[in-house]
Amino acid sequence: MRQAGRYQKEYREIRRNHAILDICLTAELAAEVSMLPPRQFPDLDAAIIFSDILLILRPLGVQIGFGQGEGPSIANPIQTQADVDALRPLDGESLQPVYDAIRIVKRELAGRMPLIGFAGAPFTLASYAVEGGSSRNYLKAKALMITPVWVALMNKLADAVIFHLRRQVEAGAEMLQLFDSWVGTLGSDDYREYVLPYSKRIFDALRGSVPIIHFATESAHLLELMTEAGGDVIGVDWRLPLDAAWSRIGKRAIQGNLDPATLLAPREHLLRRADEVLRRAAGRPGHIFNLGHGVLPPTPVENVAALIEHVHARTAQR
Amino acid sequence: MRQAGRYQKEYREIRRNHAILDICLTAELAAEVSMLPPRQFPDLDAAIIFSDILLILRPLGVQIGFGQGEGPSIANPIQTQADVDALRPLDGESLQPVYDAIRIVKRELAGRMPLIGFAGAPFTLASYAVEGGSSRNYLKAKALMITPVWVALMNKLADAVIFHLRRQVEAGAEMLQLFDSWVGTLGSDDYREYVLPYSKRIFDALRGSVPIIHFATESAHLLELMTEAGGDVIGVDWRLPLDAAWSRIGKRAIQGNLDPATLLAPREHLLRRADEVLRRAAGRPGHIFNLGHGVLPPTPVENVAALIEHVHARTAQR
Repeated sequence: MRQAGRYQKEYREIRRNHAILDICLTAELAAEVSMLPPRQFPDLDAAIIFSDILLILRPLGVQIGFGQGEGPSIANPIQTQADVDALRPLDGESLQPVYDAIRIVKRELAGRMPLIGFAGAPFTLASYAVEGGSSRNYLKAKALMITPVWVALMNKLADAVIFHLRRQVEAGAEMLQLFDSWVGTLGSDDYREYVLPYSKRIFDALRGSVPIIHFATESAHLLELMTEAGGDVIGVDWRLPLDAAWSRIGKRAIQGNLDPATLLAPREHLLRRADEVLRRAAGRPGHIFNLGHGVLPPTPVENVAALIEHVHARTAQR
Repeated sequence: MRQAGRYQKEYREIRRNHAILDICLTAELAAEVSMLPPRQFPDLDAAIIFSDILLILRPLGVQIGFGQGEGPSIANPIQTQADVDALRPLDGESLQPVYDAIRIVKRELAGRMPLIGFAGAPFTLASYAVEGGSSRNYLKAKALMITPVWVALMNKLADAVIFHLRRQVEAGAEMLQLFDSWVGTLGSDDYREYVLPYSKRIFDALRGSVPIIHFATESAHLLELMTEAGGDVIGVDWRLPLDAAWSRIGKRAIQGNLDPATLLAPREHLLRRADEVLRRAAGRPGHIFNLGHGVLPPTPVENVAALIEHVHARTAQR
C-alpha cells in the first residue's frame, strides 16, 4: 500500500522534496520508496510496489490533481455518456515508470521476498472519477450507477485495470492486490448489480497468472459477494473477527486483520491483539497476517518491528 | 434525527437566523422545527424531537462549539483521569429546553402520532469528547479505551444519558432512540469489551419505561453484540439486506433500511428499492420502515412525500 512508507522518517524526507505523483511516475524514486520497508524490516514476508490507485485515471483522460494535504481533486468529473466516450484506453507508455519500478525493486529484492503489484477496483476508481474527489456519501456515484453511463464507465475502467495488472505481472509482480477501498458504502444489492460483474471480469481475465488479493474496508456485509467476484485471497479489515470472516469466505485464503490503531497502543496491548488474530486463524494454512488497512502515519516504527518479530516468533513455534 | 428537517425549505429559513445550538436550547424553536415534518407529512408514523446528541456534553463541562459548516469542535478534549474527574453529573436544569420542547410538540401533535426522544450512546459521545471533534480513525479514543480512564468516562456518560432519557420520557416521549452512530469503527472484540457494558447499563436502567431503538451505522459486524447490549428495536443501516440483518438480530423489532441516497434517484428506482425493503420484511410484525441513516440535505421533498405514500399504500394492502 502507498501508506506503507508514511510512518518511516526516510519516506517523510523524500516527500519533503517530491510530490506523491512525482515519486510514483519516476521509476527510481518509486523503487527507492518501495524498498524502504523491506530494507528496514528484512523479515517481512512480502514487499509492495509504491504507487497510487488513482494514477491510472490520468492516461484515460481524467484530469486528477493531488493537492497538498487535501485529497485528490478532478477538474473534469465524469457525468455523461459523452464524458465516458471521451475516455481513452490505457496505453502501454503512460504508466511505464510503474513497470520500470517493479523491475528495479525485483532486482534489488533478489528473491528475498515476493513483490506485490496492485490496482484500484472499478467502483473505487469510478467513485473518485464521478465525485470529482473523495466523498462522504457518494451521492453522484450512486446516482450515475443506475444509468447506462455506469455500465460503459465500469467496463472502460475494468479494461484499464486488466491492462495495468497484466503489465505489472510482465514486469515481475508475483502477486496482485485489487483495492476496492470504498465499496463498503454500498448495500449488498447495489454491489451485486453495479459492481460485482466488473470486478469479476478482472479476476476472470487474470486467472492463471499470479495470485490476487481482493481487498475492501467496511465490507463485513459484502464478504460473500466479494468472494463470488473473485480473488485467491480475501483481504478483510479489522471489524469482523478473523474466524467469523473466514467462515463466510469459505475455502479461500484470507489476509488480515489487526486494527492499524493497535500499532499506536502500548506494546503489551499490541501483542495481545496480534495473538488474538493468530488464535482465530488457528494455524490453518492460507492465513496472511496483516493489518486490516494501511499503516497509519503516526505509527511508531519500533512497534512495526516488534509486531513483525512477534508474529514470526509465534508462527515459527507451530 | 436532527437531519430530519435539513431537506425542508422551512428549516433552512429558520437556520438562516438561528444557530443549531440556539434552536436546540430554545424550546419554542426546537418544537417548531420538530413539527415541520409532521406538518408537511401528516401520514408519518412518528415524529422525533429536534435536538443534537452532543448537547449533553456542555452541562458536563465539555466546552463544545458548533462552527459554521465544519463539524463540532471541543476546546478541552478529555485526555486524563483528572479531565474525567472534572466532569459534572447532568443536572435537571441545563437541558430543560429539550424537555419543554417535548411538551410543546406533544401538545401540538395531539396524539396524531407518537413522539421519539433520543440521546447519543456513550461511545459516540466519548469519541467526540476525546478526539475533540469529528474523526476519521478515532486514534485518541482507541488509545484511551484501553486505560482505566475510559471506564470512568463511559460510566459518567452512561449516567448522564440515563438521566437525560428519563427526563425526556417524563416530558412525554413515547419512544426513545440511542444513537451509537460511529461505533462501527470498532472491531467486535473492542465493542464487547469497551462499549457493550456501558450501553447495556442504559438499556437496563430504562427497562419498563418506553420502547427503545438502538441504532448504529456500518454495524453489520456488530448486530449480535448490539442486540445483546439492548434495545426493543434494532435500527440498521442500508448495507445489509433487511432479512439478513433481521435473522442475525433474532426476536426483536427492526428499523430500516433504505439507503438515504435512493431518495435522490428517479422515482421509479426509489419505489423499486422501497419495495425491495418491504419484500424482505415480508410483512412480519415488528418492522418499522425507515431510511438506513438521516435524510440527506439535497433530498427533493417531493420524493419524501412519494416514499411515505408508497409505503403506506403497500403496507395497507396486507
